[in-house]
Amino acid sequence: MTKPLHPNLNVDALFLGPKSENAVFFREMMDYAVSEHMHWRSGFHPGDSALITSVDRYEHNYRETLYRTEGILNQLSAKLKNTSIPFFSPRYLGHINSDTLMVSNLAYVMAMMYNPNNCSYEASPTTTELELESGLDLCRMFGYDPQQSWGHITSGGTVANYEGLWVARNLKTLSFAISQHPRAKDLVSHKTPKQLMNMPTAEVLDLISELQQRGIFEEIRDMTCRGTGVKPETLGKLLVPQSKHYSWMKAADIFGIGQENIIPLPVNENYQTDVTQMRKITFDLIEQGESILAMIAVVGTTEVGAIDRIDEVIALRQECEERYGESFYIHVDAAYAGYACAMLLNEQGEFVEYDELASHHRSMGIMSENISWPKPEVYKSFKALKEVDSITVDPHKVGFIQYTAGAICMKDKRILDLISSRAAYVFEEHNDQTNSAARNRGMLGSSIMEGSKAGATAAALWAAHRLLPLNISGYGKVIAAGIVTAQRLLNKLANLPPIEVGKHRFEAHIMPSPDFHMINFTFKEIGNENLNNHNALNKRLYELCSYSTGRAYTNDFLTSSTTLDYKEYGDTPWHYAEKCGFSRSEWEKVRRIYVLRAAVMTYCLRNEEHFEEFWQQLQTIFVKKLNQLVDEEEKKAWLISGIDVPFIG
Amino acid sequence: MTKPLHPNLNVDALFLGPKSENAVFFREMMDYAVSEHMHWRSGFHPGDSALITSVDRYEHNYRETLYRTEGILNQLSAKLKNTSIPFFSPRYLGHINSDTLMVSNLAYVMAMMYNPNNCSYEASPTTTELELESGLDLCRMFGYDPQQSWGHITSGGTVANYEGLWVARNLKTLSFAISQHPRAKDLVSHKTPKQLMNMPTAEVLDLISELQQRGIFEEIRDMTCRGTGVKPETLGKLLVPQSKHYSWMKAADIFGIGQENIIPLPVNENYQTDVTQMRKITFDLIEQGESILAMIAVVGTTEVGAIDRIDEVIALRQECEERYGESFYIHVDAAYAGYACAMLLNEQGEFVEYDELASHHRSMGIMSENISWPKPEVYKSFKALKEVDSITVDPHKVGFIQYTAGAICMKDKRILDLISSRAAYVFEEHNDQTNSAARNRGMLGSSIMEGSKAGATAAALWAAHRLLPLNISGYGKVIAAGIVTAQRLLNKLANLPPIEVGKHRFEAHIMPSPDFHMINFTFKEIGNENLNNHNALNKRLYELCSYSTGRAYTNDFLTSSTTLDYKEYGDTPWHYAEKCGFSRSEWEKVRRIYVLRAAVMTYCLRNEEHFEEFWQQLQTIFVKKLNQLVDEEEKKAWLISGIDVPFIG
Repeated sequence: MTKPLHPNLNVDALFLGPKSENAVFFREMMDYAVSEHMHWRSGFHPGDSALITSVDRYEHNYRETLYRTEGILNQLSAKLKNTSIPFFSPRYLGHINSDTLMVSNLAYVMAMMYNPNNCSYEASPTTTELELESGLDLCRMFGYDPQQSWGHITSGGTVANYEGLWVARNLKTLSFAISQHPRAKDLVSHKTPKQLMNMPTAEVLDLISELQQRGIFEEIRDMTCRGTGVKPETLGKLLVPQSKHYSWMKAADIFGIGQENIIPLPVNENYQTDVTQMRKITFDLIEQGESILAMIAVVGTTEVGAIDRIDEVIALRQECEERYGESFYIHVDAAYAGYACAMLLNEQGEFVEYDELASHHRSMGIMSENISWPKPEVYKSFKALKEVDSITVDPHKVGFIQYTAGAICMKDKRILDLISSRAAYVFEEHNDQTNSAARNRGMLGSSIMEGSKAGATAAALWAAHRLLPLNISGYGKVIAAGIVTAQRLLNKLANLPPIEVGKHRFEAHIMPSPDFHMINFTFKEIGNENLNNHNALNKRLYELCSYSTGRAYTNDFLTSSTTLDYKEYGDTPWHYAEKCGFSRSEWEKVRRIYVLRAAVMTYCLRNEEHFEEFWQQLQTIFVKKLNQLVDEEEKKAWLISGIDVPFIG
Repeated sequence: MTKPLHPNLNVDALFLGPKSENAVFFREMMDYAVSEHMHWRSGFHPGDSALITSVDRYEHNYRETLYRTEGILNQLSAKLKNTSIPFFSPRYLGHINSDTLMVSNLAYVMAMMYNPNNCSYEASPTTTELELESGLDLCRMFGYDPQQSWGHITSGGTVANYEGLWVARNLKTLSFAISQHPRAKDLVSHKTPKQLMNMPTAEVLDLISELQQRGIFEEIRDMTCRGTGVKPETLGKLLVPQSKHYSWMKAADIFGIGQENIIPLPVNENYQTDVTQMRKITFDLIEQGESILAMIAVVGTTEVGAIDRIDEVIALRQECEERYGESFYIHVDAAYAGYACAMLLNEQGEFVEYDELASHHRSMGIMSENISWPKPEVYKSFKALKEVDSITVDPHKVGFIQYTAGAICMKDKRILDLISSRAAYVFEEHNDQTNSAARNRGMLGSSIMEGSKAGATAAALWAAHRLLPLNISGYGKVIAAGIVTAQRLLNKLANLPPIEVGKHRFEAHIMPSPDFHMINFTFKEIGNENLNNHNALNKRLYELCSYSTGRAYTNDFLTSSTTLDYKEYGDTPWHYAEKCGFSRSEWEKVRRIYVLRAAVMTYCLRNEEHFEEFWQQLQTIFVKKLNQLVDEEEKKAWLISGIDVPFIG
């Protein structure tokens, strides 16, 4: 029996559910996972005599050991139940986190008992295959050629970003090494020194193949920074959006590049990299003879979910190649929003034309009449991903897998030879698919940054991808649920009448029109003109909606928060401060605004009726929290008047 | 009721068992873990109306989705059962892998359902605490002061090694930065330029505290390689045992140090770093004015389990400080054997005197009369660990945790400020334990290399450490089982009479007297003087004892293998080749010897009677495999005579 091509998935049946609605199924499957493994054990050489007999098991200290084990698990469960965060619930709208797929949790447990280590094929014949298959799923989603590209699982987006920078850095020093080698320098003799330092990625990769043909690749690789160490002045600058995720600061440190060689790209008022300034900075650098190590773009910033214009980055690179004969490496950090690419692909995995997308989404029942996603420029960004050199994407974010599963996709797997610990060999000998798979097999540990890695993670990801195709009918359906909810919630917050608490009145202000499903908002006391007070109020509001004022489990609503600071975003947050009604001079004095931040990933509120009920609750909760806050403040004013920054005016 | 201080653990009750002997308990606890979490969900705001009703669940596509989920899990189970490796069985003696603790598997599942992310405290209030507690357990085991040290979980030993090198590298460039800063240079004005480049770790860390007092630490940190990028010529050389694990080659690449700046330290005939040569190389470097970035020593090499003389490394450093006023950073890679430190500690966590150790082990019933561990110099190595600056240790190796859980311990946590992404602040304000814990809380993601990390791993490790104290009565008991078995097996192999197969006779040769529980051996055809043939024979024997000739599940015995090569070990493998009876000229021609390699971790054969039965089986298996091999060879000789290297003479 062949399966239908387009599964008609029910999103509610994918998760354990907010009240463990799928308890019976989950328990049954867990039991299945455990039983299967147990029978695998007892069926292995069944004739072997028992090493642990029932008499042994009757020993006093045998039972004592089991009871101790149980006691420790009791303690652990008590701790977990006491202080864990209920990410599974629609009442949690904070970090990029929600309920996780049953199939991935079950697959993890199933594979964990076999304990495969994907570092080497020998220790993971099953799960190494699953990792490579899942990696290719992601490559395909982004539009990479599955014959040329490769993807693999990392412990998270941070390490995926590291790998992107690692290949970019080593690539950067290869052309110079070639120019220094007597048997290779003819390959680049037509280049000017500047062009030599700024070669297009694809051209350098072709040179790798040529060097391998000549049998001198390894020799030359030893002459790159891998062998000689880094000389930051020869690497050029690392261009990173001003909102730079701290993983890039860590990366510049780790890879010996130096944080001072990061050039921040200013953001526009939507927190996307400002295209005009990006172009200017790039052209200026090139014209000053400065080299560009890599350009980093972000698809879904962790603070506001902004999506950079990838198509513009590609266009800029092309322009640099045409105008100056110079190029640069592009890595996209799509840790957060990468999986949303599935929203744009039809069941054949092809991009749906933008004009047809909204009706396609509606016909699939995943978007209601008045809601659509994405904006045209976000669509263009996703469509341009296939041109970038590497992409970070986190299955443990919008892939709905439990922690931790990051991933990196690389457009052209030849690039791995720059970082590989294996003997590199000529590709032409192994270019059919079978051998390519065989080639990949042994190499995970020797072609990646990490060493040992749980094969169970690969099983979890593989299972998720099998259940949810990376297109509109699979992941698209689940991701749409969050987008719909985010848009409804934004709309409600924008139209919320002021909340009165005694003599105080508070109004909600949203950051409008986000690129994805992260929303930022604050409550402002009407009449308050002091930005510090506003920040203190919202900080306290966050505390009242988080673990920090006590057990999260007993809280009604949980969210997260962030500070939008001049240091990171320049004047961009001013637009929001202005929208909230603060004066320019107030902004210039404080230069930071504290906001509540909610990544809306829950699938539970996609139904309008459920959402309305939730919204009624949420309004009551806001009233309650604001009352609590005013109450505290009045007590405090009475107790320690004048010592702290007041929350309210 | 307080628990007895010294648990009387039964090793057989710690694992699921070779025939799933503890199936009932495991299943019950798994059900408990799942139930506890389910009730946690359904008890969260029980008044909330149902978002998924039983009517919803009756929908056709609801049930279809569950069946699809089940179908995928069926597929996954089939794959896992078909090609997994039965690490759990005593028939598997290969990689550093065996059965894993029930308590850790269960704790992982329990915590995974809550999906904590130890990157930030906010996403993991429970499991961040468990990670820090487990890290300190390891610090204490190695003799570090728990008030000053810290330890945390990494995705594996490779990343732990990276972190060790990261802090060492950044530390190295701090003193020069200080000497360049007008408000700090007085602190080092008494140093000669050479001394400045080679300051003792503790002295530099005191300077950090002083710089923080002066409020200029962050400014100066930006002047280290973290800010400026790496200048390999100022870092000095990285001294790594010649057996260098490939993670060090990767590390030298990643951290911008350059692989050519690694200086290999030759090994002695026991594959330990040769102390005389280590001393000579170090003194020569210092006398030539060359700086030492760090000295790496290994406690348990992955190829033969050799344990370097840590006490000699410490003595050497002290001598350098006294003789030249120069020092260096020491990192120990104890990924493999680190947990064996528990074998040397009494129930109070104190080192047992060497003279009393054997009787202590016997009185605990963990070592039989004729077996003892460790050798005196290995004991000294473990005892000296408290003096080194950082230590890698892998819970997923001899901690019997499932993949992946590595860890690093750092002697003095002030060193974190060199790599931290947080604002550094003065320690003096926060030197009581409560604040120190509070300080640690928020910082995992900002003080480590990785970002997101599964809190479930911390739960698994914490649970293991609670069940098995890190001393003779806990981990010591489980680790001893492997050591006892390894020693018995070595003894049997050493005394195995030649195996006759037709006109061929094969004898086993062991590499004698290993430092830990890894054994290496080969079968040699008597009369064969050709080392290439010997290598081919053992390679084929490995294939016959691994997944590579078919389903591992149907195999009788599984092991791993490695090649001891002149490139890595110099002439050291010659001693073994000679022992096997090969001539010096034959060795000089081939310069590598292929060996079977077994990390003996199984707890199932500690009982002498069980071991004897296993050994009878194993002899039969060897006979069978050698027969198969001769058979194949004869067929091949007939089919394609002269084309391949023959296995047998």
